[in-house]
Amino acid sequence: MTVKVLTIKEDILGINKEKAIKNRERLDRYHVLAINIMSSPGAGKTSLILQTINRLKSKTRVAVIEGDIASQIDADKVFQHGVPVIQINTAGGCHLDANMIEKALDNLPLEKIDLLLIENVGNLVCPAEFALGEHRKVMLLSMPEGDDKPHKYPLMFTETDVVLVNKVDLLPYLDFNIAAFNQVVNGLNPRSKIFPVSCKTGEGLEAWFSWLEKETKHRVYDSQAVGP
Amino acid sequence: MTVKVLTIKEDILGINKEKAIKNRERLDRYHVLAINIMSSPGAGKTSLILQTINRLKSKTRVAVIEGDIASQIDADKVFQHGVPVIQINTAGGCHLDANMIEKALDNLPLEKIDLLLIENVGNLVCPAEFALGEHRKVMLLSMPEGDDKPHKYPLMFTETDVVLVNKVDLLPYLDFNIAAFNQVVNGLNPRSKIFPVSCKTGEGLEAWFSWLEKETKHRVYDSQAVGP
Repeated sequence: MTVKVLTIKEDILGINKEKAIKNRERLDRYHVLAINIMSSPGAGKTSLILQTINRLKSKTRVAVIEGDIASQIDADKVFQHGVPVIQINTAGGCHLDANMIEKALDNLPLEKIDLLLIENVGNLVCPAEFALGEHRKVMLLSMPEGDDKPHKYPLMFTETDVVLVNKVDLLPYLDFNIAAFNQVVNGLNPRSKIFPVSCKTGEGLEAWFSWLEKETKHRVYDSQAVGP
Repeated sequence: MTVKVLTIKEDILGINKEKAIKNRERLDRYHVLAINIMSSPGAGKTSLILQTINRLKSKTRVAVIEGDIASQIDADKVFQHGVPVIQINTAGGCHLDANMIEKALDNLPLEKIDLLLIENVGNLVCPAEFALGEHRKVMLLSMPEGDDKPHKYPLMFTETDVVLVNKVDLLPYLDFNIAAFNQVVNGLNPRSKIFPVSCKTGEGLEAWFSWLEKETKHRVYDSQAVGP
């Protein structure tokens, strides 16, 4: 007896690349840096966004797009931090797509925004496959999810610019091998940066803020150099 | 300024209900009880399956279908417990469907199986929408994911027969309000049972085993009464 492995390919991709390119051109015209934030449900995307707004809003004009299947719990939290926010409800859809982002951009004051944080639907699968027009992809892995996730959801790790390993405050109570995790992620994607953080205690977030500030500045510089 | 909410409906459902009914009829012919186990990535589905095999295999003939986008890590773990196992790799697909299950059933000795545990792809969205032919749906919520998940992923909670709230061993380090969680789940789905468990320490699993044994027995009785 051996393990039987069946590989069954199903086409779940819509064609939204063209619209993503248009979104990207529009964001570039307004010198907005857009970050697509992805993770499993409950890995800490909203907490990361709230921490980031608090830290950066004195010098960076932040706006947020919240993606959820249902509810506007997250948008309400962001709204209380005084930045423009759009809630997208996908009504069952398991990821954001470029069409949804286009509609959200129609409702945002782009000329008054430097940094657009897009919280995707909580899902480690489909969001990685749909470009939104973002400049950078960021994913959170919550430590309690386990260090084997890069093996099981490789596309998300291959596509991302930054992996935030969140809930590091729980590490003493978990069997999570950080060295092994880093090695697998680096194997899949050598350019990805890995920051262990706790969005609850703030531990490790300075590295994330520094990266983000550098990207925002670089983006503004780029846009000034290249023109709209 | 108020929060703007955009509702954008996209049709992501394939039509697989007919095939699910055929799978169900086939399982019934062989008196196999099939359980569809769903959760976010890393919530503990494989640990639950391994604990269940260990506890029940002396009196119940268990088999497993493992669903993953990539890898056969989980099937290898199950295989070492000496029960028949099929690994389905969806090659990017974010959920199992009835067609995949049909192919897996072709490769299982159904006449020698009482209980078929199907581990769906780690995802709190799409698996809830695709019937496989299962008799019961079970979901795990990992406590570190937070107690607000029923608001944000309502379909999964509406559809399920049992919610296992896993990683209860981490509760002292989390802000998880069990009473509030139970109330929301009961509001969405009054018939769903909720068992707080730890697949790591074994805490609370007896309630799950009892439920499963009752369902398996009831199923065999049903089949004998109704005939194939």
